[in-house]
Amino acid sequence: MPGLTERVDVPVAVIGPTGYTGLELLEILAGHSRLRVAYLATAREKQPRIDEEFPRLRGRLGPGVDPRCRPISAPDIAAAGVELAFLCLPHEAAMVHAPALLAAGVKVVDLSAAYRLRDAAAYARAYGHPHTDPAGLAHAVYGLTEWNREAVRTARLVANPGCYPTAAALAVLPLLKAGLIDPGSIIVNAASGASGAGREAKPHLTLVEAGDNFSAYGVGVHRHQPEMQQTLDAWGRPRSERDEGVLFVPHLLPVERGILATIYARTPGPALRTPDLLRELRDRYEGEPLVIVRDEPPTLRDVQHTCAAHVHALALGERVVLFGAIDNLRKGAASQAVQNANLMLGLPEVAGLG
Amino acid sequence: MPGLTERVDVPVAVIGPTGYTGLELLEILAGHSRLRVAYLATAREKQPRIDEEFPRLRGRLGPGVDPRCRPISAPDIAAAGVELAFLCLPHEAAMVHAPALLAAGVKVVDLSAAYRLRDAAAYARAYGHPHTDPAGLAHAVYGLTEWNREAVRTARLVANPGCYPTAAALAVLPLLKAGLIDPGSIIVNAASGASGAGREAKPHLTLVEAGDNFSAYGVGVHRHQPEMQQTLDAWGRPRSERDEGVLFVPHLLPVERGILATIYARTPGPALRTPDLLRELRDRYEGEPLVIVRDEPPTLRDVQHTCAAHVHALALGERVVLFGAIDNLRKGAASQAVQNANLMLGLPEVAGLG
Amino acid sequence: MPGLTERVDVPVAVIGPTGYTGLELLEILAGHSRLRVAYLATAREKQPRIDEEFPRLRGRLGPGVDPRCRPISAPDIAAAGVELAFLCLPHEAAMVHAPALLAAGVKVVDLSAAYRLRDAAAYARAYGHPHTDPAGLAHAVYGLTEWNREAVRTARLVANPGCYPTAAALAVLPLLKAGLIDPGSIIVNAASGASGAGREAKPHLTLVEAGDNFSAYGVGVHRHQPEMQQTLDAWGRPRSERDEGVLFVPHLLPVERGILATIYARTPGPALRTPDLLRELRDRYEGEPLVIVRDEPPTLRDVQHTCAAHVHALALGERVVLFGAIDNLRKGAASQAVQNANLMLGLPEVAGLG
Amino acid sequence: MPGLTERVDVPVAVIGPTGYTGLELLEILAGHSRLRVAYLATAREKQPRIDEEFPRLRGRLGPGVDPRCRPISAPDIAAAGVELAFLCLPHEAAMVHAPALLAAGVKVVDLSAAYRLRDAAAYARAYGHPHTDPAGLAHAVYGLTEWNREAVRTARLVANPGCYPTAAALAVLPLLKAGLIDPGSIIVNAASGASGAGREAKPHLTLVEAGDNFSAYGVGVHRHQPEMQQTLDAWGRPRSERDEGVLFVPHLLPVERGILATIYARTPGPALRTPDLLRELRDRYEGEPLVIVRDEPPTLRDVQHTCAAHVHALALGERVVLFGAIDNLRKGAASQAVQNANLMLGLPEVAGLG
Repeated sequence: MPGLTERVDVPVAVIGPTGYTGLELLEILAGHSRLRVAYLATAREKQPRIDEEFPRLRGRLGPGVDPRCRPISAPDIAAAGVELAFLCLPHEAAMVHAPALLAAGVKVVDLSAAYRLRDAAAYARAYGHPHTDPAGLAHAVYGLTEWNREAVRTARLVANPGCYPTAAALAVLPLLKAGLIDPGSIIVNAASGASGAGREAKPHLTLVEAGDNFSAYGVGVHRHQPEMQQTLDAWGRPRSERDEGVLFVPHLLPVERGILATIYARTPGPALRTPDLLRELRDRYEGEPLVIVRDEPPTLRDVQHTCAAHVHALALGERVVLFGAIDNLRKGAASQAVQNANLMLGLPEVAGLG
Repeated sequence: MPGLTERVDVPVAVIGPTGYTGLELLEILAGHSRLRVAYLATAREKQPRIDEEFPRLRGRLGPGVDPRCRPISAPDIAAAGVELAFLCLPHEAAMVHAPALLAAGVKVVDLSAAYRLRDAAAYARAYGHPHTDPAGLAHAVYGLTEWNREAVRTARLVANPGCYPTAAALAVLPLLKAGLIDPGSIIVNAASGASGAGREAKPHLTLVEAGDNFSAYGVGVHRHQPEMQQTLDAWGRPRSERDEGVLFVPHLLPVERGILATIYARTPGPALRTPDLLRELRDRYEGEPLVIVRDEPPTLRDVQHTCAAHVHALALGERVVLFGAIDNLRKGAASQAVQNANLMLGLPEVAGLG
Repeated sequence: MPGLTERVDVPVAVIGPTGYTGLELLEILAGHSRLRVAYLATAREKQPRIDEEFPRLRGRLGPGVDPRCRPISAPDIAAAGVELAFLCLPHEAAMVHAPALLAAGVKVVDLSAAYRLRDAAAYARAYGHPHTDPAGLAHAVYGLTEWNREAVRTARLVANPGCYPTAAALAVLPLLKAGLIDPGSIIVNAASGASGAGREAKPHLTLVEAGDNFSAYGVGVHRHQPEMQQTLDAWGRPRSERDEGVLFVPHLLPVERGILATIYARTPGPALRTPDLLRELRDRYEGEPLVIVRDEPPTLRDVQHTCAAHVHALALGERVVLFGAIDNLRKGAASQAVQNANLMLGLPEVAGLG
Repeated sequence: MPGLTERVDVPVAVIGPTGYTGLELLEILAGHSRLRVAYLATAREKQPRIDEEFPRLRGRLGPGVDPRCRPISAPDIAAAGVELAFLCLPHEAAMVHAPALLAAGVKVVDLSAAYRLRDAAAYARAYGHPHTDPAGLAHAVYGLTEWNREAVRTARLVANPGCYPTAAALAVLPLLKAGLIDPGSIIVNAASGASGAGREAKPHLTLVEAGDNFSAYGVGVHRHQPEMQQTLDAWGRPRSERDEGVLFVPHLLPVERGILATIYARTPGPALRTPDLLRELRDRYEGEPLVIVRDEPPTLRDVQHTCAAHVHALALGERVVLFGAIDNLRKGAASQAVQNANLMLGLPEVAGLG
C-alpha cells in the first residue's frame, strides 16, 4: 500500500535548536509533510521549551511535536526512533556528537564546519583547534547538493556547506568548469546579513553598531576561504601551481538575512559575451528546482525566506562579473540541510522546501 | 472514497497579484496542499508574468501554476473551474468585480475595504466615494475568523478585515465582551510596517524618508476607525450613547511588515488583576490555533512571517493595557483570507497556514 | 576687553566618554566655540584613546584636545583648570564622583539619574539601591532647561533630565499648567531608538533581534515614570489625591536614535479645539530656540541629530493627543547637558547647539 | 583691523536646496561661522519655505537667514551681494545657470555632474545629452580638494566630484601614483546609501523594496566610471593602451547615507607588505585634516555625518585591497563643496567642517 507508506513521517532530531540555524530548521520542518521533529536536544544545562525560547514558534511546531528540549544523548535519540539528526552545534561539539549518533545508527547532517574541509590539517589551520574525528572526516560527504547529489544520497554523514561558499560556488562552478574563467583570477566580494554571525550578543552586532552600517571583515583570512577553494578546485577546475587562490572579502550588511556574492574573474582567453555565460549557467542548472539563473543581477530580497539560489553573470570585455544570492539561513544553512536530508532518506529532494 | 477526495486540489484565482497582498497570497498558496492557483488576473493593460514582476516567486509557484497574468474576466475565471477568487484590488474595482464573479458562480474573499462596513453611508463617509454594490454589502460576511467562523463557512462573499482592526479586535474583544473594560474608554495606539501602505512609490515611503523614522498619521481620522468600532460594537459590547468611540492613532514603523497595537482602556469598576485578564483571554482563545495568548507583551518579530496573532493584557490599577501583534500581510490580510477561504470551501481551517 | 574675553575657552571635562552619551557630547563640544575639552576620564582600568574607541572622532576633537582618557580624579580634574564636568557614568558612580568634583570646585552636569528624583526614598524605590549622596540631592537642580532656566543659571550641580521625561514634559506641561488637560488622565505612549538602552551588548539589542522589530517594555514599571510624574506635578498642575499617576508605556524602535512620545489626555471640561491647544503651546514657547511648535505631528527624522524638541497637540472632542519628539542622545541627553552647562557658565544658552 | 575682518560673513546662495544635497549644505552652513546663506533659489514653480519643506531645519538656519526660496535669477542673486553660489540642480539646469551666475560675477561650486568630465563628447556619451556650455567646461576646475587644491583656490567654477569617484580616488590615488598598483587592474566594488539616488520617489527606492535589501546596479555602465577613470589617469598614473579601464560595480545599501568602496588591484611587481601601503597613504595624507588613514578597514558608521574620508589598504600577496569610506552627502557632496568654497573665498579650508 504505497499510499499509506507515503504518509509515514520520518522522525528526525534537531540538536542545538536555540541558534538561528536551529530556529530556521524548525520553521522549515513545521511545514514539511514527510519529516517529523521527534527530538529536540541542547547542550544547555537548563533545557528550555523551544517555543518559549522563540515565541514565534508558539503553535507552529506541527502536530505532536514536543517543544521541550532534552539533553544530547545519542542512545536516547536513537531509542526515540530518530533516523536522522540535524546538528546545529559549535564545531568542537559536532565532532563529539556526530560519531556518537552515527554509532547509534542515526544519520547526521552537520551544519557546523566540522566536516567541511577534507583535510584535518587544513581544518586545524582554519579553525585553530585540532580535528578530533578524522575517521568521520574520511567518510563525510560535502553537501553542496546540486554538485554532489549522488554522494549525498548514500551518505551517512553530510557536511552541510557554509553560507558564503554556497553562494559563491553555485555562481562560479559552471563557468569555471567550462573553462570560461581563469581559476587564478577569482575575487569573491560578498555581503551577509547579521544572522550569519550567530545569536550571541557581541558589541559589533548590536542594532546601534551594526544597523545603518556596512563594513568588511576578515579580509583575506576568513575561514570560509579554504572551504570555497576546496569546492572550486574539486568541482570546477584545478588550479595550476602558479594560480593564486580565490580572494575572499566578506562584508557585514545591516539586515537580518541574505548573502549577495559579487564575484570578479577574468577569461582565460579572448573577451566573452554575456549570453554565452548565461547559456552556460542555464545548461548546467536546467531542471534544478533550487537554482534560478537570472537575466539581471539578483537582489537580496529576491531570495530572503526562500530556499533558492539566484545566479547571474555578465561579460565585460575580458572580465566577468558573477552574482550569487541566497538566504544564508536557508540555502546557506537550514534548507540546504533539509534538501540533503531528503536525499539521504529517499524522499523527494524538494519536499518541504516550497 | 475520502482518500481520493482529500487529494483533489480546489482551483482558486488571485485577482490583483501585483501588490504586496497578492504576493503574500501567492507565497502562502504555493505551500498550500489543497488550493491550486488556476488563474492570475490583473487590471493592468500589459499583463506581466508574476514571477518576473516578483523574481522571488521564480520556481516557487507550485507545479502546474501558470505565472502569466490574464485580464479580469469573471466568465473566463469561472470557465477555468475556479471555485473561489481572492480579490486584491482597489476598493472601487472590488465593487465591480465581486458581483460579477459571484454571478458567475465563483465565491469571493475580498481583501479590499469594499465590503467591510455594513452601512453604505458609513462607507461613503470613510472612503469618500459612494458604495456601488449595496446588494453585495447586504450579504457580505465580515471575515474576522475567530469571531465569525460559522457565518464565514456558508458565505459566498467574505469581506476580509483590515489589518489594524484585526490586531486591535483580537486583543480587545474578549475583555470587552466579558465586561472587564469600559467600551467608551478605548484608545488604540498602533504601529505598522510600511507594506501596509501598499506598493506605490510615494515620497514619504522611500527608504530615506521612512527608514530610521517613526511618525503618527491619520490621527483620529484613519479609515480603519469605523471598521474597528463596528467590530467592537458587534462582538464586544455595545456602547451607550454617551460613550466616546474608540480613539485610533496609527504610526508608521521603519520595517517592512508587522503591526503592534498597544491599547489602553479603563475598567468599568474596581481595579483588576493581570491574571484575571489573561484567564479571560485564554478561556476565549482556547483551541484557537492562530491566536496565541502571551504571558508578556509580544514583539513584532514574534509574528512576522507567521499566520498567528499574539495577544496580551496587563492590569495597572483601574487601567488596562492590551497588546495585539500580527503580520499585517498575513493575519492582517493574506493568511486570514486563506483561513476564510478554507472554511468557505470545507477544508481544514488552517490548511496551508503552518 | 570683552572681545578678548569672548574668545576665552572654558575648560570642561567629560567623565565617562566611552558610552553613547559621551560620544554625542564630544561631537557637540567639537563644534562648540566656547567650551574646550580639557580632560577625558574613565573608570575603565585600561584607559583608551577616545578616537580609537570611536574612530569617527579621528581628527574631529578640536584643536588641542588630548584624545587620551585618564583615571577619574577630582583633584587632577580641578588642577587641569576644568570649570565644569559632564558626568556620563552609571548612577552609583555618579553619586561618588559628583560630590568629589563639587568639593574640588568643579561644577557638574550629571547625565545619570542619580540626582533627578528629589526624594532619596523615591530614588531607592525606582533604582533598587540607596541614594548615597542625599546632601547633593538637596541642592541639585533639575535641568529641564525651558522650565527651570533661572535655577540652572546659579546651580553648581544640575541633574540632566531623562530622555523620555524630556520628550513628554515639553509637550504636556504647557497644556497641563494652563488647565487644558486633566492631570489624572495622562498616558505617555513613547518609542525610542536603541541607543537609549546604552552601549552594552545585550541579547535583545542585537541587530537580528532589535532590527525590524518593535516591542513594549517596562509597561507601568519603567524608572522614568516617577521622574515624569515629579516634573508634571512640579511645573504643571498638582494632582488631587484621587488622580491616577501618569501611565507610561515605552517601546523599543529599530532605529539608532530618536524618541517620539504620543500622549493621550482628557480635557477637564468641555471639548477643546486644536487651534486653542496650539496657541497655548506657541505662547509658552515663543522665543524658545530649542522647542518648535509644529502644525502637524513631528516625525523622528525631523529631530534626529538636532538639539530641538518638536511638539504638537490635537483636540478630538474631549480627548487630546499630544506629541513630543526629540533626539534622545541630544535634547534627551548631551545637548540638553550643554544647554545647561552654557547657562551655568554664563555663556549664550544655545552656544554650540546650532 | 583683521579682527573685524575675520567676523565678516561671506554671503552665499544655495540654488536647489530641496534635494538631499541642498539640505545637507544648509545643515553645514548653519554651523559655519564665516558663510551666511543670503539667498535660496529653486526652479519649482511654487517656491517653498525651506523649513517647511524640511521641518528639521526649523529654527536652525542661523540668525538672519530667510527660509523662503526665490526663483533662480542670476542678476537678483548677484544684487543680493552673493559671492558664491552652490548649484544643486540637475545637470542640464546647471549648464544654464552656472554661466549666468559667473557672468553676474558670482563664483560657482556645481554639485551636479555638468562640469566634471573635461571632454564634452565624453559627457554626452555618459549622460545621454549634449553639453551646452563647453566654454564653462574649458575653465572649470575639478574639486577633488586634496589633489587639486591650488587650482581650486583660484577657480571661479568648481565641478564638485561625484560621491563614488571621491571615495575611490582618495584611496587609490596615492598607491597608483607611487607605482604600487597596476593601473590596468583596478576593480572598484562600492556600496552606497539610498540618498545617493536622490529624493524622487522611485519604485525600487521605497522602504519595502530597498530596506533589508542589497543589490548591484549599473554594472559596468554607471556614469561615475568615466569620472573615476579621468581622475585616476590625471592624478595617479596614465594607463598604457592595453590597460583595461577601472571596473566599477556599485551596490545599493539599505541605509540613508554612506559609501564604502572596496577596491581590488594587483601590484605591478612582486608582493607587497601592508605596512608599506599604509606608509604610502600616511605620507601622502599627512597634514590633511579630512582624510584619515586607518589601521583597519573603516566602517560606514565611522564616517556618517562627518566630513572626512577614511582610507585603508592591505597587501595580500600580489593583490591589494583598498578601502575608501565617506558620507556620500558630505565628503561625497555638500561638505566637499564647502571645503572648495572655503578655498575659493580665501577662508580656512576646514571652516564649518568640524
